[in-house]
Amino acid sequence: MRLLKIAIALCLLISAPYASFAQQGGSDPLPSWANGQAKSEIIKFVDQVTDKGSPKFVRPKERIAVFDNDGTLWCEQPVVQIMFAFEEVKRQAAKHPEWKNAQPFKAVLEGDMVYFEKDYMSGAKSLLQITAVTHSGMTTEEFTGAVKRFFASSRHPKFKVTYTKLVYQPMLELLAYLRAKGFKTYIVSGGGIHFMRTIAEETYGVDPENVIGSHGKTAFEKRGESWELVKKPEIAFVNDKRGKPVAIDLHIGRKPIFAAGNVRSGGDIAMLTYCQTNKLPTLQILVNHDDPNREFQYSETNNASLNAARKNGWAVVSIKKDWKRVFPFGKQD
Amino acid sequence: MRLLKIAIALCLLISAPYASFAQQGGSDPLPSWANGQAKSEIIKFVDQVTDKGSPKFVRPKERIAVFDNDGTLWCEQPVVQIMFAFEEVKRQAAKHPEWKNAQPFKAVLEGDMVYFEKDYMSGAKSLLQITAVTHSGMTTEEFTGAVKRFFASSRHPKFKVTYTKLVYQPMLELLAYLRAKGFKTYIVSGGGIHFMRTIAEETYGVDPENVIGSHGKTAFEKRGESWELVKKPEIAFVNDKRGKPVAIDLHIGRKPIFAAGNVRSGGDIAMLTYCQTNKLPTLQILVNHDDPNREFQYSETNNASLNAARKNGWAVVSIKKDWKRVFPFGKQD
Repeated sequence: MRLLKIAIALCLLISAPYASFAQQGGSDPLPSWANGQAKSEIIKFVDQVTDKGSPKFVRPKERIAVFDNDGTLWCEQPVVQIMFAFEEVKRQAAKHPEWKNAQPFKAVLEGDMVYFEKDYMSGAKSLLQITAVTHSGMTTEEFTGAVKRFFASSRHPKFKVTYTKLVYQPMLELLAYLRAKGFKTYIVSGGGIHFMRTIAEETYGVDPENVIGSHGKTAFEKRGESWELVKKPEIAFVNDKRGKPVAIDLHIGRKPIFAAGNVRSGGDIAMLTYCQTNKLPTLQILVNHDDPNREFQYSETNNASLNAARKNGWAVVSIKKDWKRVFPFGKQD
Repeated sequence: MRLLKIAIALCLLISAPYASFAQQGGSDPLPSWANGQAKSEIIKFVDQVTDKGSPKFVRPKERIAVFDNDGTLWCEQPVVQIMFAFEEVKRQAAKHPEWKNAQPFKAVLEGDMVYFEKDYMSGAKSLLQITAVTHSGMTTEEFTGAVKRFFASSRHPKFKVTYTKLVYQPMLELLAYLRAKGFKTYIVSGGGIHFMRTIAEETYGVDPENVIGSHGKTAFEKRGESWELVKKPEIAFVNDKRGKPVAIDLHIGRKPIFAAGNVRSGGDIAMLTYCQTNKLPTLQILVNHDDPNREFQYSETNNASLNAARKNGWAVVSIKKDWKRVFPFGKQD
């Protein structure tokens, strides 16, 4: 009898976590989201647009959801693509001895990050110069190879994990939830289109054709015996601010009904505004970085994104209050 | 007994066409294609890449098929978008009295088509000027409205039907066949992206996000109280020749395994070449306009497309020999 009791107790112990998991997964599509206004607005919206009996029903073809990447789907402190560019400068330095004494390369090689932060305009110009050098002169396939090496080896300075581990768990759940409800999910980011596509499919479940980003010119050229797409240093399109609606129109050709961005530079205001011009029911969410302990805390000097959210009725997502968990790794709060 | 015989005969008569249709549809996915090399190459290729047991199997995500539009999916004599531009000039002429005496508008208003054919370079420049005027200064939605009016009312000068009736029946069957086999079908055309999207979904079953084309600049601007995408006169991207691989990479991010183009300007050579650089199994087809009776007969002065087809092993589709039927309307040969 005592043995039976032990056996039952063991069974309960073993099955408890699975039962809890099944309950969580089955009843709550967004388990890492705390109960609150943001979560209920999202679920209410999805319920309405997918319910054939609802006056707000939207047919699947029109269920377009667009997500900014840096600061919306993953951590942007520091911006991952800039870390990649810096590491490429270091990797290529042996072939460029002149970089030791030429800015902005000297600053990168010496780890002098202050150089890029002294003045916004000159800092941005220096970053463009470094991006041009590290993102051109190779075929798109060679570039993809370099990006893959970076993601396999480099680690975040604070969290000490590879960068693709710094995606937001609540947003992974949201992407999966929307897709399960017949949405097409797109990334619409200021980041480089070739850079993001390298990891978008396995990290977010977003296929390359659903990744929209900034890009330089490419040219179809013969290299030796083979035809290749070669990346050029000239900028072709900057997918930020008012560029985002333009790119969404060119790539998708339909207005989104759902758009997600974040507070930092005002870079997503135009995209969320564009989404809201859709005559179909829409929802806009704006991630606010207000959690210095689990992630980072930062805001805009002019508060433009939060002001636009208040004025237009966009849902503001507080990382501190709305997310029970931030990253897939580590312990849950 | 006689009544029974009559009933049976009636039943046979009634069911015969359906039986024949079912047999045709069930056993032959391309009923308007004559048996021949082009048709067998297509079916063999599709069988191989969709057969899990075949060494040439391609997973569905990689089954990307790209089609040129003018001269590949529909008739390009005359180019439909130029007809639209000419009609727009006539429609807007009342607001522009100065056009009566200013070329190239004067030529359009007087129906002087020779003006555009006198010299290739000056003809092209005039067409660009007319395109800029008729394709800019309005919102994307206003433009779509103008295009819809054109397609509802204008008729082809020779065939006297609206332009969307001049799609090639064999290509409609090919698009449907590939989609049924798990392919994603894209239009990759020198035509305008906003122009083609107006009709692509209902004409070809190709969603707007799968239409890639040339385009002018657009800007996200406030007009009165509302935010709009406004078409500008500057050209942003010409999706022809070596531009096609660049656009396929930007929009799709995967190399196609199937590409279809046509003989006229060499405009599809780069796209078919790019498709063939795919490491997966691929097929390229090139439509040759050699049927002056049912469609039009034309070729290239330098024969570049047919030479490339011969050199690279692309399948050449003779409209005369390979297509039992050209358009969906009219009697079948």
